[in-house]
Order: sequence, then structure tokens, then C-alpha cells
Amino acid sequence: MEFEKISPAQIETRSFAIIESEMKHPDIPEPEKSVLMRVIHTTADFDYEENLVFTPGAASRAIELLRQGTDIVTDTNMARAGIHKASLAKLGASVHCFMGDADVAAAAKARGCTRSAVCMEKAAALGKPLIFAIGNAPTALIRLSELMQEGRLKPALVIGVPVGFVNAAQSKELILQSGADCIVARGRKGGSNVAAAICNALIYKATGER
Amino acid sequence: MEFEKISPAQIETRSFAIIESEMKHPDIPEPEKSVLMRVIHTTADFDYEENLVFTPGAASRAIELLRQGTDIVTDTNMARAGIHKASLAKLGASVHCFMGDADVAAAAKARGCTRSAVCMEKAAALGKPLIFAIGNAPTALIRLSELMQEGRLKPALVIGVPVGFVNAAQSKELILQSGADCIVARGRKGGSNVAAAICNALIYKATGER
Repeated sequence: MEFEKISPAQIETRSFAIIESEMKHPDIPEPEKSVLMRVIHTTADFDYEENLVFTPGAASRAIELLRQGTDIVTDTNMARAGIHKASLAKLGASVHCFMGDADVAAAAKARGCTRSAVCMEKAAALGKPLIFAIGNAPTALIRLSELMQEGRLKPALVIGVPVGFVNAAQSKELILQSGADCIVARGRKGGSNVAAAICNALIYKATGER
Repeated sequence: MEFEKISPAQIETRSFAIIESEMKHPDIPEPEKSVLMRVIHTTADFDYEENLVFTPGAASRAIELLRQGTDIVTDTNMARAGIHKASLAKLGASVHCFMGDADVAAAAKARGCTRSAVCMEKAAALGKPLIFAIGNAPTALIRLSELMQEGRLKPALVIGVPVGFVNAAQSKELILQSGADCIVARGRKGGSNVAAAICNALIYKATGER
């Protein structure tokens, strides 16, 4: 077994060098390039070179909003767990996930909708700029789109990367047409890990630490 | 936008039907098939049909051990967050992750190794059968392999699915040669989401709920 000898501190730098050397289109601009590379780092899947799309200026504006302390809302506790909260705290921001809340479960059951959709309403009711990181639930993206149309929400950024086989791809096309600043993984692929990786790439750009 | 009309409760069943219909080799036996399908469900990546390997009987034995209340150890809080703890609790088992422990960080810094490696030692010191779910750190798999060679650990199962570009593939080949019961994603792909999905598939088989 031929292992590469490397100190723990050097693993990430080396990984990113390998990723850059294997990218088909390494000449894309920053900060989009750092976001894409961290997604590939998290998945070892170069399909994201084709799938991951950014509305113009969305990533740069999100970094600026993070510097101003804009909070993040996720649709899974797994995505929340994957976000580097110590770095986010340096910016004065934090992560919310309402999926485990008893009132959310009760409302979803009563209305026959998903908890994820109810979570989006709960976030909108906070009445402040938020970055939405959606890695799991197409219904969260659909509800976000409706809340925007109803004039009840103006997200700072929507990271729309639910993984899945039922309505995931469609929900991502819908959010791309919403007019919101978006980072979206078109098609079926994505996930809570991808949502967290995109958040972390933006956070590290905002703090300047990586 | 053409959305599929479906109730929240039906989404998973429908997703699994789509996955089965698109698999190149849908004729593999249970319980391995359920594990593979849940990994594809989590990633939308059919590459796992080729990458995901099981040592003979490992999945069946792990299900039996879960029924006996065997705990799970993860190498990330993200994998821990993704494991269905309510279902696991029905079996009398729980999930441990030592990555945030202050003593682990201190030992890793002092010795110049990764926290993940130290976490494996801390788990081995528990002195009981454990399922290891490793989705992030090749060094965790390498240390597990060493602990087995030193006679300090006999894992119930090693889920070896770290994602990555530096030593990830090699660490997975190493663990496959260790003699332990293994479920491994060969090559670069994997992740905390994949580790959690494999655990959940085994847990649902053990509880019989899905």
C-alpha cells in the first residue's frame, strides 16, 4: 500500500492542488472557483463542474453579507453540523435549523406538508436577511419560491442543492427562476454535505482564513 | 415546471423505485441491496454500484449486532447528525463521536497526528463491540487497522467510506485487508453522508421499520 507522506495540516492544500489539476475548466473566476473546488473536495465528484451554477454576483454578495453577520438557515441538522461554526462565529453569525422543533412537526402533520416547508415559513417570520442552505428537501425550495412570490421573503442567498429523484431537479430550476441570488446544483445531485461545503467556502472567503 | 404530485410519506418509496429501475445490477442480494440503494438515494450517484463492496456476511452480522444494541462510533459530528437516532434508540444503541473532545484535540496536537486517529484510540479503550462509521478521515481507518494489528481492537464492523484525494483510496484498501467485517466505498468517493446512509440502512433492517 503506497501512502502519501503528509502532515495533517497539509492534507487540504494538497487535495485542492489535485482537484485543480484535474478540473476540466480550472480557469473560472473567484469566488465561484473556491466554492466549486470545496464541493468537489467534499464529494470527489467532478460532475459539479457541469452541475453547479451561480447567478451573477451571488457568491460575492453572499460573502459580503456574511461579513456583515448574516445568519444561515439549513433544512437538515446534518448540514448544520457540517458548517464550520467557529469560523461563522468570527463573523458574528450563526446557523439555524428548525427541523427538530415540535411546533414544526405539529404544523406539518396538521397541514399534510413537509416539515421542511414549515421550517422555511418559520425562517421567513424572523424578518431578517438570511442565507438559506437547502441540501435535502425540494419542498423547502418550492416553499421559498412561494414565500418570495407572496412578498413575505427576500433571501440574501439561496443555496439550492437538494439531492434526489422526486422533484429535486425541478425545484432547483424553479428557484433559479425566482430572481433570488442562487447557487444551485442542477439535476439530481447535491446533499447536506454539499450545502455545508458551499457555506464553508463562502465563510472562509469572508473570514479570509483559507 | 412539471412537478410530480406526491405526498411527503410517498417520496422515499417512489425514490427507491426509481433507483431500482435505473440500477445496472438490481439483482444483488439483501441486505446489501438495501444498503447500496440507500447510498444512491443519499448521493444520486450510481457509481456506488461499482465502488461499494461488502466483505462476505458483514452486513447481515452488523444487523444482528445492532439488534443486540451495538453502539456506533463516527469520525465526524456530521455523520452522527445524519444517523437516525430515534430508530437506533429502539435497539438500545447510541452514536458516539469524540471529535469535539478537548482531550482528543490536545493529544492530536501533542503527537502531530489527526484528531480522527486519536478518536479511534478513545473508542478502542471503551472495550466493547462497536460499529465504526468513517466518512471523512483516512487516518481513522489507518489507525483502526493498526489497533487491530496490535490486538487492541476487534470492531463489529468498519464502514470505511472516507471521501478524498490524499490517502483515502489507499486507506480503504488497507481496511479491506485487515480481516475485519467491512463495508467500503473503494476509490475516492464517500463522505459523512454516505457513512450515515449505510448506518441508517442497517438500522432500518434491524428495526424492520423500512
